Amino acid sequence: MEPKAGRDTVRRHNLSLVLRAVRDAGETTRAGVSARVGLTRAAISSLVEQLLEAGFLSESGKTFSGHAGRPGTVLKMARTGVAGLGVEINVDYVSVCVVDLAGTDRVRLVEHLDNRGGAPSRVLARAARIAARALASADEQELRPVGTALALPGLVASGTVRAAPNLGWSRVLAEGLFAEALAAHRPQRPALPVRAENEANLAALAELWFGGLGDARTFLYVSGEIGVGGALVLNGELLRGAHGFAGEIGHAVVAPDGPECRCGSRGCLEQYAGQSALLRAAGLDESDGAHGVSELVHRARSGDERALSALARGGTMLGRVVSGAVNLFDPDAVVLGGIYRPLGPWLAPPASRELSARVVSGLWPVAAARLRAASPATDAVRGAAAMVVQDVLTDPLAYSPRPATG
Amino acid sequence: MEPKAGRDTVRRHNLSLVLRAVRDAGETTRAGVSARVGLTRAAISSLVEQLLEAGFLSESGKTFSGHAGRPGTVLKMARTGVAGLGVEINVDYVSVCVVDLAGTDRVRLVEHLDNRGGAPSRVLARAARIAARALASADEQELRPVGTALALPGLVASGTVRAAPNLGWSRVLAEGLFAEALAAHRPQRPALPVRAENEANLAALAELWFGGLGDARTFLYVSGEIGVGGALVLNGELLRGAHGFAGEIGHAVVAPDGPECRCGSRGCLEQYAGQSALLRAAGLDESDGAHGVSELVHRARSGDERALSALARGGTMLGRVVSGAVNLFDPDAVVLGGIYRPLGPWLAPPASRELSARVVSGLWPVAAARLRAASPATDAVRGAAAMVVQDVLTDPLAYSPRPATG
Repeated sequence: MEPKAGRDTVRRHNLSLVLRAVRDAGETTRAGVSARVGLTRAAISSLVEQLLEAGFLSESGKTFSGHAGRPGTVLKMARTGVAGLGVEINVDYVSVCVVDLAGTDRVRLVEHLDNRGGAPSRVLARAARIAARALASADEQELRPVGTALALPGLVASGTVRAAPNLGWSRVLAEGLFAEALAAHRPQRPALPVRAENEANLAALAELWFGGLGDARTFLYVSGEIGVGGALVLNGELLRGAHGFAGEIGHAVVAPDGPECRCGSRGCLEQYAGQSALLRAAGLDESDGAHGVSELVHRARSGDERALSALARGGTMLGRVVSGAVNLFDPDAVVLGGIYRPLGPWLAPPASRELSARVVSGLWPVAAARLRAASPATDAVRGAAAMVVQDVLTDPLAYSPRPATG
Repeated sequence: MEPKAGRDTVRRHNLSLVLRAVRDAGETTRAGVSARVGLTRAAISSLVEQLLEAGFLSESGKTFSGHAGRPGTVLKMARTGVAGLGVEINVDYVSVCVVDLAGTDRVRLVEHLDNRGGAPSRVLARAARIAARALASADEQELRPVGTALALPGLVASGTVRAAPNLGWSRVLAEGLFAEALAAHRPQRPALPVRAENEANLAALAELWFGGLGDARTFLYVSGEIGVGGALVLNGELLRGAHGFAGEIGHAVVAPDGPECRCGSRGCLEQYAGQSALLRAAGLDESDGAHGVSELVHRARSGDERALSALARGGTMLGRVVSGAVNLFDPDAVVLGGIYRPLGPWLAPPASRELSARVVSGLWPVAAARLRAASPATDAVRGAAAMVVQDVLTDPLAYSPRPATG
């Protein structure tokens, strides 16, 4: 290895350390960064200068004397410049968000529409149109997304959606189709790199980065949508499995001869605890989407028998499958996201009973503490946008508007 | 960090690299090691000298000219000296083995006996007596085990068996009790360090180190014993979970109101696919152990209806649970060990049918290739002994009979 390359690599690494130290601190000083990162004040000053110049950090004149040592000017993540774009395409909505370097949600657009059975290229073009609008809002706020992550409810690997049964998709080259459609809306702009990812994976990352999990770095995320998605996080890293398809908890069997599932099997969990199944069992219109879920909450609150029994059954089935997953994976916590957040008050008690009875480690009688609702404002689309920002934090120079100065 | 400490660390690391290179090659020369490890001939020679002197390697006079370059004398792992002791305590047997530095099984003792419900200290004392006999055989072969690993059918963390329902154990300090009992048999010898581990974890490591998995580095291991054990290996590393209890696939629910399980729950997989359950369903005496399993194989071969239907049901249940685990963990392969090896011809076809129908990635219609029997001669007790040897390979100097020379 050339000494020059070695020095460059170290500097790039240190730029990332400093940037992440500021992000973690929220507001800090050069001295604060130095204490956090363990490099000398002189080294920190040089790194901070470069990050200020490239527009990743901003500095305010006010002094800050909360720490020992002489007061310094306050460093923060830049509120403008480099950002991430997230786009979630789900069965009955498209959601787009732009996240800045601090991880803050700065633009959000949600459109409820029926994507079921639509040609993938049309659905992706529609999502690109919504994304283009979000990018226009980002422009107005002087935010410049440097990449896009697509959140999709299906098996995604190497940019291809292998199968998204609830959308009716099979082998769709989602990244390319979306990039093309988005470029058509922005003829004068450089194309944004696009990557596709499973939506539950991204929701789990959002929970890891922005949620209230505290020390829990190993958890199972289960998301109620039209289907039931899942993701495993092991010591703060997404567990992808051998082919990128890990986490598909929605297709665990709960009743071997139960109803046919869109995946081709029978009696899968999502036939009992997915949104459509819960609405149907409660006597509601399963195509009613978010409105149907609100109605289900309303009926459960007012003691409607059918709603309560649909939720009791769904929660029990969920608890059985989650018990098996806890026995297999031994997580610190299980996080319930998607529609399981609003439905948690009815789903969690029967699910906890199953966990208490069936988890062999005996660590889950306290299931109430370990089985928790996802944090508000952590969802797949925010995870998607934040994943782009995460890439920036890992190697800021690669995204610098000015050429790297080594 | 002191420069001296830095040099020491690098040398210790390089000694490990060289030792593992010889182990992987089987037989090689200094030139062969140099090519594999990427250090200079001079550096390799010095490292090899130290490993020869400490008795980790042996050298034979015969030259070897299979490779380019001038022929050299042949290096091999030492057949004597440092070794590992493994002790498996299962419900109806105790198995002990001593493995040398090359990973070869050099002593093996198996005693079939009923450990169910015996006081843990008595069972451990009995196992220690058998281990002492194995150590005497090791002595005769000039092998010197430097540690013991205990394989136990239960939840093991931090040296304590939290629960081993099929043994009737709860919160047993197995490491200490075994070490004491073994020391009583060898009053003149230094005490061997003892560590306890879940038996399926060790069987999975044996499969990883000595089995025929080829490139598959992410797999699920499922072992049929009195209960059903399991282990997850992710990229060549055991996945232990947040508390060390991962892999407990035997307690996945297959029939929520099914028979009571010793774990306290109902309708667990092991009530359908464990050894006792299979023997019982086939009309055999469930306390008949290994003999009962042979009889089951015999009856299945001769077309006995009851045996065939017990195995068909067990295989289907196994396939359902394994499908769920594959959907969650996305492994390259599933390895069936323990009694599932001899029973594979009857269990695998119904299990494969479930996998083909229920694994959503669609990667498992070729389940026959991915669902495979454990390799012969890879079992928990060999994994246990090899785990001790693995520690030696990672830092040979720590186990050198002479003081480290830095």
